[in-house]
Amino acid sequence: MNKVFVIGSGAKHLEEEISKNAKILKTEIKKFPDGEKYVRILEHGEEVIVVQSTYRPQDEHLIETIIIGDALKEAGFEKLKLVVPYLAYSRQDRVTKEGEPISVRAIMKMLGLYYDELYVFDIHNPKTLDFFPGKAVNIYPAKVIAEYFRDKLENGLVLAPDRGALERAKEVANILGLEYSHFEKERISPTEVKMTPVDVNVKGRNVLIVDDIISTGGTMIRAAEILKDLGAEKVFVVATHGVFAEGAIERVSKAVDELAVTNTIPTKVSKISIVPEIMRSILEVKS
Amino acid sequence: MNKVFVIGSGAKHLEEEISKNAKILKTEIKKFPDGEKYVRILEHGEEVIVVQSTYRPQDEHLIETIIIGDALKEAGFEKLKLVVPYLAYSRQDRVTKEGEPISVRAIMKMLGLYYDELYVFDIHNPKTLDFFPGKAVNIYPAKVIAEYFRDKLENGLVLAPDRGALERAKEVANILGLEYSHFEKERISPTEVKMTPVDVNVKGRNVLIVDDIISTGGTMIRAAEILKDLGAEKVFVVATHGVFAEGAIERVSKAVDELAVTNTIPTKVSKISIVPEIMRSILEVKS
Repeated sequence: MNKVFVIGSGAKHLEEEISKNAKILKTEIKKFPDGEKYVRILEHGEEVIVVQSTYRPQDEHLIETIIIGDALKEAGFEKLKLVVPYLAYSRQDRVTKEGEPISVRAIMKMLGLYYDELYVFDIHNPKTLDFFPGKAVNIYPAKVIAEYFRDKLENGLVLAPDRGALERAKEVANILGLEYSHFEKERISPTEVKMTPVDVNVKGRNVLIVDDIISTGGTMIRAAEILKDLGAEKVFVVATHGVFAEGAIERVSKAVDELAVTNTIPTKVSKISIVPEIMRSILEVKS
Repeated sequence: MNKVFVIGSGAKHLEEEISKNAKILKTEIKKFPDGEKYVRILEHGEEVIVVQSTYRPQDEHLIETIIIGDALKEAGFEKLKLVVPYLAYSRQDRVTKEGEPISVRAIMKMLGLYYDELYVFDIHNPKTLDFFPGKAVNIYPAKVIAEYFRDKLENGLVLAPDRGALERAKEVANILGLEYSHFEKERISPTEVKMTPVDVNVKGRNVLIVDDIISTGGTMIRAAEILKDLGAEKVFVVATHGVFAEGAIERVSKAVDELAVTNTIPTKVSKISIVPEIMRSILEVKS
């Protein structure tokens, strides 16, 4: 395991754990008084894995990422891999109104100027990986999510909030040997949507609802209420990315028995670390 | 003159004046609650000139610029020209310590993903334009600077703060038919540098000091003091880009008879508009 990592400003919270399993390259990253980022690479090498999560301030993290890339190339590194736990702009993935950009395409092209391989976590639309010019991999951290909830879910089940998210529920459930299903949404009035768990009996059982992103948390709160009404015992909510709107952590926490997200974005409920998944996927080291 | 402009968030202060001479394309540019920029182009066309100045928050302005580019290409525009009055990272133009990037190269490559032509104002190092893959033009707004000071400089002279900045002083002086020169810097102790205007008599005359960027303003204040000691009548200071550090506008203003910068960056002393220079250079329209 002679791989080395560079940690960007958006991945500082992962640095200590990564350093237990791999070498971290010495760097200097700071901001000038006028707001410009300054980067310096203090060691040499040939191949490097840059870890940079691009949550808010997302544009600063993105620009820093290509500046790190430029410094590494200038310093003689030949192969640059990039791990982006949370990729900004990944929800701007299609033109829904005429005149809109596909913003994630611009970001993918920009990262492709310097990086040979891209590893992202649970991207909103995996098809957008095609915009990256090199090899691009989507990682769903099913294992760390499943293990975190294993002891809390005996005889429980895993639910996706809609059919589109079913694959995540399936992956987590399969690791735990549990049943899985999804909610069906039915519009019953112009303002009201009825959500029903499909083909499963939740009465007296613990349920884990699995999604990719929580922002306002509205869907999760509604789903939890319905499960409680149907007699579910405990309701747990997990998402890969905690892009929480103001007050959302508190609102969701109040409505469920436990809320947890992974640490692709650092928040106070980022209880599940993706570092083992980074190691598995990029270094192919068992952990 | 059938050219159309798109105005980025960093060029809002130029919009009204540009609209007097050209058509401005309707756009929607806003920020989502999570901090991501949203762009929408509301009209059609083939060729467009995007104006975007990339002062602080520079990284937001830069990312917005490529997202605008993506929206324009998606909307079918074929030729995209980009005017960047102030280009962020332009002073990070060389490796001074091993391990540093050439940050302006990363920015130039990024802008080159979408734009065919780049027009910048008074870039710190014109050689860095070679990093842009398409046609790249540096504009020194000598004419608008000269005209602003014409009436204040009768029988005056124009000085550059060092030999490297002499070309700017020459251009401004030539338009006004005035003498020009520069300061010579001599280190007289480890902490002290002596500045002397070379081969000119400043006694009783009005002097304009011309530079590219003012940040702390230290050099300009020192130069003004020396000129006053040598008997200069009035001392005016002008720069293209007012990247002022905290309190610098006040400190420089107190030390000189007048401080003015162009509006590549909007500040309270951005008294000289570059819009006529944009029109001349890009539209080749006399103004």
